[in-house]
Amino acid sequence: MSIEVKSYAEEKVERVRRVLRELVALKTEVKNRALLTAAELINGKRSFIKEENAKDVEYAKSIGLSSAVIDRLVLNDKRIDGIIKVLKDVASLPDPVGEITRMWTLPNGLKVGRMRVPLGVIFIIYEARPNVTVEAASLCMKSSNAVILRGGKEAINSNRALVSILKEASREVGFPEDAIEFIDRPEREIVWELLQMEGKIDVAIPRGGESLIRAVAEKAKVPVIKHYKGVCNIYVDEEADLSKAYHIVYNAKVQRPSVCNAVENLIIHRRILRDFFPRMAYILGKAGVELRCDEESLSLIKSDPRLSFVKATPAREEDYYEEFLDLILAVKVVGSLEEAIEFIEKYGSKHSDAIITENYTKAMKFLNEVDSAAVYVNASTRFTDGNEFGLGAEMGISTDKVHARGPMALEELTIQKFIIFGNGQLRDNVGVPEEIMKELL
Amino acid sequence: MSIEVKSYAEEKVERVRRVLRELVALKTEVKNRALLTAAELINGKRSFIKEENAKDVEYAKSIGLSSAVIDRLVLNDKRIDGIIKVLKDVASLPDPVGEITRMWTLPNGLKVGRMRVPLGVIFIIYEARPNVTVEAASLCMKSSNAVILRGGKEAINSNRALVSILKEASREVGFPEDAIEFIDRPEREIVWELLQMEGKIDVAIPRGGESLIRAVAEKAKVPVIKHYKGVCNIYVDEEADLSKAYHIVYNAKVQRPSVCNAVENLIIHRRILRDFFPRMAYILGKAGVELRCDEESLSLIKSDPRLSFVKATPAREEDYYEEFLDLILAVKVVGSLEEAIEFIEKYGSKHSDAIITENYTKAMKFLNEVDSAAVYVNASTRFTDGNEFGLGAEMGISTDKVHARGPMALEELTIQKFIIFGNGQLRDNVGVPEEIMKELL
Repeated sequence: MSIEVKSYAEEKVERVRRVLRELVALKTEVKNRALLTAAELINGKRSFIKEENAKDVEYAKSIGLSSAVIDRLVLNDKRIDGIIKVLKDVASLPDPVGEITRMWTLPNGLKVGRMRVPLGVIFIIYEARPNVTVEAASLCMKSSNAVILRGGKEAINSNRALVSILKEASREVGFPEDAIEFIDRPEREIVWELLQMEGKIDVAIPRGGESLIRAVAEKAKVPVIKHYKGVCNIYVDEEADLSKAYHIVYNAKVQRPSVCNAVENLIIHRRILRDFFPRMAYILGKAGVELRCDEESLSLIKSDPRLSFVKATPAREEDYYEEFLDLILAVKVVGSLEEAIEFIEKYGSKHSDAIITENYTKAMKFLNEVDSAAVYVNASTRFTDGNEFGLGAEMGISTDKVHARGPMALEELTIQKFIIFGNGQLRDNVGVPEEIMKELL
Repeated sequence: MSIEVKSYAEEKVERVRRVLRELVALKTEVKNRALLTAAELINGKRSFIKEENAKDVEYAKSIGLSSAVIDRLVLNDKRIDGIIKVLKDVASLPDPVGEITRMWTLPNGLKVGRMRVPLGVIFIIYEARPNVTVEAASLCMKSSNAVILRGGKEAINSNRALVSILKEASREVGFPEDAIEFIDRPEREIVWELLQMEGKIDVAIPRGGESLIRAVAEKAKVPVIKHYKGVCNIYVDEEADLSKAYHIVYNAKVQRPSVCNAVENLIIHRRILRDFFPRMAYILGKAGVELRCDEESLSLIKSDPRLSFVKATPAREEDYYEEFLDLILAVKVVGSLEEAIEFIEKYGSKHSDAIITENYTKAMKFLNEVDSAAVYVNASTRFTDGNEFGLGAEMGISTDKVHARGPMALEELTIQKFIIFGNGQLRDNVGVPEEIMKELL
């Protein structure tokens, strides 16, 4: 670790920590004005943003990054519209800071309440998409958190441009611009250094590939909220409405296979296998989906000449653990809901899992017992997303058990402290002895 | 790490994890019956408990442990009554599991809600007091968590006896006895081994001295919720009702100085120093409290012959950071509320801090801006405790920023997952293309 890297990291943290108290005391209207002013400035500076973005795209091409990465990197007018929408959406959401979620009175008259307060300093580490810069910053601004942004190297000019506009908007309305800091140097050591700063960085949120997230979790001394991967499952129950099942499985696999809430395992109840699976395989095959099947489901495909065009191979056990992020789906036949839940528990990643059924009791059992961040009845797993859930945007998705589970937005960027209104209450009523009080007169 | 220690730890964890799904599905009445049956059994087996406890006390004496430790260790009838009360109190509290805290409907008709679910496996590490065994186990039982208990070596017979009764009660009512596991071997390596089990232990809660907690936090790969120490502050504002101030400061320092919510720093506004401080110093001096004073406050004591009996010395800067856990109080004079808040921010440990004032605006500013787990107006900091706050018992107190802040009880042993009720909803309305559906007919 070079001294220079260390002092760069420390300087960033000191800068954001200095404004924490100012942030907590800010009026909601100042925070909203900063967000709306940023939206206006971004709208007015489209050509500046596109110019800076073009530098990143050119560099990405020159070093031969994949077209998928380059696609995520590009800021065109449609994506800039999306960024502007996020800023406006977050401005329109209620301010979580200072919300008193509950208050009760004790027998001694003390009023005890729980009040939402910001976490403090959020360190977000992410990859190519520059719009994450604005999503993360806007949620932090609204929740009175300071944020340290570490985007991908390949997006550094785009991110720097966006941050400079957020800071300009902040200055204009009296929002502390130091609350938004951007790591504008490429060294990875800066990340490792920041992850050591227990008590200075309140939480780190890594977003991206599993190996990045594992490296962050491994090295961090500060708390990390994360999900490693999304091995999502859909269970088609014997009492499923099959027409719903076809569409939901299709949507969850085909509409956008490269994301964490796409389905990877299809679990089918044996009793509807013959009715359901050949048709489903036909649909998926037509969409170019490759199937990795257990024996039972595979033999059904192989015995039906109309399905000869479907690419289907035997599933190895590892396939059920895998996040394909592609047009590949593993298939498993089970004999009961119980068996399906056990399968999900064993192979899933506790991200998003769905049951397709018309049976009320089974739906409720699945909802109650599947231990995942998002549990669905009769809907596509693709909805697990802060914006889709109506939370405005998201900082990331957690499959952890502490603090947050599922998409994290404004509420998850706060913690509840206890506030106590007293009137002279004393524990066990032990006050200054009367004889001593008399001597004071 | 010996293989034996490793397999002992693994066996414990496998055992508790096997009952997690059964726990989630348990009816509240079964959990309550287990708690109330345990209360009855403990009441009926007082002599057994006292005999086992006597072995611990005898051993503690034989190795020369301090009388304070031995005092915490003893289980007499009064303490057994306390244990029985905790079990009954926890049985009477609402069950947090399955509570749907919020539910909303999206424009597409999806109903999205948040449901409380258990964390999973809680690993609690604590010291001498055997009643913590029952407090922790009862909160975990009620919240459908499994618990691995690691008490102090000096209390091993008492803890083993209490756990055996909890298991007996569990068996009687059909509660899974494997949900309560006790580390009945003394090796510290077992603790370090368990702390590595990411994904198997869902959270570790260390309670006890700062060095134990630091060692746990340092070594753990699993999430840890904790507080290192309690440097609590009371600020007596220029607009304080001084008679409240005398009693509150006395209570917070003298009633039980050895605990984390006792006050360690007294901050006084300069304008009331002459009125307030000599009397306060007199009261504290009479109670045997030693004062560590800044220059201004010290000179006031030294210039008053009626205070010559008060033990007062100049405060060094380190004194303000120190958790004395004793009849010692550091004193600091400030010129404003702002300065008091800055002092608390710098020297406090974000545990419990109080303002004494009659001024509404200052009270609200202090409540809003002091970034501690519990912030008080006009009451003793000694109330920071799960039972005092009406939460039945506590698993520990957190000064962390993630998951929980302040006393942790039933709610803090849960996390909210998302549940989604659908009716065939598809992301971006992308379903199976119509022409493909027609081919299926």
